[in-house]
Amino acid sequence: MSPEALVLALRESPAALALLSPLGQRAALPFGIPQQSAEAAGCERRATIGQITDGDGVPLPLPSLHSHFSHLDPREALLYTPQHGLLGLRQRWKEHILASLGGDTPMSLPVVTAGITHAISICGELFTAPDRPLLLPLPYWDNYDTIVTMRTGAPILTFPFFDQDPLAPGTARFNTAALREALASLAGPATLLLNFPANPTGYSPMADEVPGIVQAIADHPHPLAVICDDAYETLFFEPGMYGRSIFGALARAADPRRHVICKVDGATKELVFFGGRVGFLTFSVTGAAGEALAEKAAALIRSTISSGPAPAQSAVLAALQSPTLAAEQAAVVEVLAARYRALKAALDDHRVPYYPFNSGCFCLLPLHDGLDAEVVRKRLIAEQSVGVIQIPQVNALRVAFCGIEARDIPDLVERLARVIG
Amino acid sequence: MSPEALVLALRESPAALALLSPLGQRAALPFGIPQQSAEAAGCERRATIGQITDGDGVPLPLPSLHSHFSHLDPREALLYTPQHGLLGLRQRWKEHILASLGGDTPMSLPVVTAGITHAISICGELFTAPDRPLLLPLPYWDNYDTIVTMRTGAPILTFPFFDQDPLAPGTARFNTAALREALASLAGPATLLLNFPANPTGYSPMADEVPGIVQAIADHPHPLAVICDDAYETLFFEPGMYGRSIFGALARAADPRRHVICKVDGATKELVFFGGRVGFLTFSVTGAAGEALAEKAAALIRSTISSGPAPAQSAVLAALQSPTLAAEQAAVVEVLAARYRALKAALDDHRVPYYPFNSGCFCLLPLHDGLDAEVVRKRLIAEQSVGVIQIPQVNALRVAFCGIEARDIPDLVERLARVIG
Repeated sequence: MSPEALVLALRESPAALALLSPLGQRAALPFGIPQQSAEAAGCERRATIGQITDGDGVPLPLPSLHSHFSHLDPREALLYTPQHGLLGLRQRWKEHILASLGGDTPMSLPVVTAGITHAISICGELFTAPDRPLLLPLPYWDNYDTIVTMRTGAPILTFPFFDQDPLAPGTARFNTAALREALASLAGPATLLLNFPANPTGYSPMADEVPGIVQAIADHPHPLAVICDDAYETLFFEPGMYGRSIFGALARAADPRRHVICKVDGATKELVFFGGRVGFLTFSVTGAAGEALAEKAAALIRSTISSGPAPAQSAVLAALQSPTLAAEQAAVVEVLAARYRALKAALDDHRVPYYPFNSGCFCLLPLHDGLDAEVVRKRLIAEQSVGVIQIPQVNALRVAFCGIEARDIPDLVERLARVIG
Repeated sequence: MSPEALVLALRESPAALALLSPLGQRAALPFGIPQQSAEAAGCERRATIGQITDGDGVPLPLPSLHSHFSHLDPREALLYTPQHGLLGLRQRWKEHILASLGGDTPMSLPVVTAGITHAISICGELFTAPDRPLLLPLPYWDNYDTIVTMRTGAPILTFPFFDQDPLAPGTARFNTAALREALASLAGPATLLLNFPANPTGYSPMADEVPGIVQAIADHPHPLAVICDDAYETLFFEPGMYGRSIFGALARAADPRRHVICKVDGATKELVFFGGRVGFLTFSVTGAAGEALAEKAAALIRSTISSGPAPAQSAVLAALQSPTLAAEQAAVVEVLAARYRALKAALDDHRVPYYPFNSGCFCLLPLHDGLDAEVVRKRLIAEQSVGVIQIPQVNALRVAFCGIEARDIPDLVERLARVIG
């Protein structure tokens, strides 16, 4: 679309028009090589794009390289993907989301990104700016500072993640009242990011918490972009949990005059493909306005990495069509659930206090007032041969149980307890 | 490095300190999860990073996905790569550059980027800003507008690529006098981008042109970042050409008080791996200052895509170690050289005028005054079933001969000649 056509299409989403940052407003795909190449796709002689091929769009692979991808079609593995990502992959991922969230969820066609961070970074560039803050529950993944504030200069505002002292196990819940209060302090366009299962707390809402969160956002009177960072989706370990992304409920409750809900997810954890760099960005905006937002995301892709990694995208598409994938994924979730149960049992056995957690890859251990997280982290390496991450925001330690076998978890906790118990 | 340590390290490169944009100055890797994880690499219990593994750093691959990469080590193909890219790949690529440019070329360890566009985008973010223009010979690849101006707001200044009427075949050369004049018009820090073999002209300097280009840059009295966009390196087709990147000569002539030379290259064309998204960014800055610039590049990677695609990086590293790779690459260059010769012969046969070209993937055909490039492009699709790219900057058509077999090139030119002859 031309810049004028983009603005026209976005009139159907007044919220998007109000929310776009200066860079988001500028973002547009010029009528450049990919577009002119697409127009010539049916020609007998295609001298458009700078790819080395045989004249029929088949690459000239180097055997020393192609041998590593010989199970994939060389056209899919070796040539450029579209800026938006492989069309078949976008369509298949939309079905995947709808199957989980319900067919009545309003949504755009997902744009494929180079991993989940990339999708968050694109949202940050589209919607945040020095006068467009990012609102986050505290504690939060520290890379949001890098992704958003370092790049766009947007300030991060926080509210407390839990509604009461998280050291009373099992009683604290997500702090919807603090979310409401923080939203009430906003006077103009802003972005809210909610990451469930959360990094670093490992908490996801129970089923009865979600209506309140949705209502708080639906009631907000100003333009609000909401990023659902669903990086750890599917890793839910307790009964009574909501157990899926809140994107569906938020998108159904969204008012197009005020809300743009963004779903960020991907193959990173769901397909145990950390190095693949295959993520997705989906908007609650449908029709031409949704296409316009997707095109702005594609323009930001074109201007950073040009297009995403083809071998990884085609492998993910093939995997999504495998009849055994669901069983393979369920087996991994069960492995993590066993680690989760072992960790909770060991923490209780050793009376190590922890923040409420029920999902994802992490738990968060608060430290006594006298202990400094950075000092304790170094002591754990030196004295116990244990590596954890310090979270200075709340003087706590993040323990990634996703990388420790269940049988080793009691030993891990015993070592931790020696220093922080 | 901490932000303070970065500034300290950069004191060895006053040019870099003077050239960094506001975003480039902010760019820094926090003491976050990757760094803390690296510190715990030797621990018996590593509960640091959110990767799903078996406790010994071996991934739990889904067979439906991993089957497509079964020739690669699952740790390399499925897990995160470092922000800077696989260390072995960085070291191997440095050897590759030094073998071509000479062991006395001052350079940093290359940072792996998600393709060549990504390396240019990182340079754009490091060095350009609304008051830090980008200088380019005209015509230029139109995506520089998107990569640089759309993102950073930096204006693009141009000078004429050729030193005389390019329609007198074989006589026009690179316009070093215009480069000097354009540099003289700059009053403060700026960035110059030189792309040889060039897109869209297909021109690279002859051996006797390079000393003048290097001298013009060496004489420039203000801070200047020079991006050598070597995307089409190795595709040189005529005797008497310089036949390698000008990065080496520029880096050897650089004054650390004024110059930062950046080399941008990759597997995209050199390994015929368009979809892989494996590029490299190398600075002429050595020692701690070079490490600081590389770390700033890594911070920009961490804040956009987190890390690069692992299957592609590990496949490129494996390919670079293959004893047959050089012969395979030479065979592809010969295929393109044959297409180049067929194209030049056919254009001469049909008396179709062309800009001087001797390298790369493209040639550029100027149009008579009465013909509009966009109109002609559409007529070529509709009437001749031929796809080309219009270059409105100079009202010309870009012909990508890299995607047409040599035997089909006479037919391609005949079709072109019917409309533009």
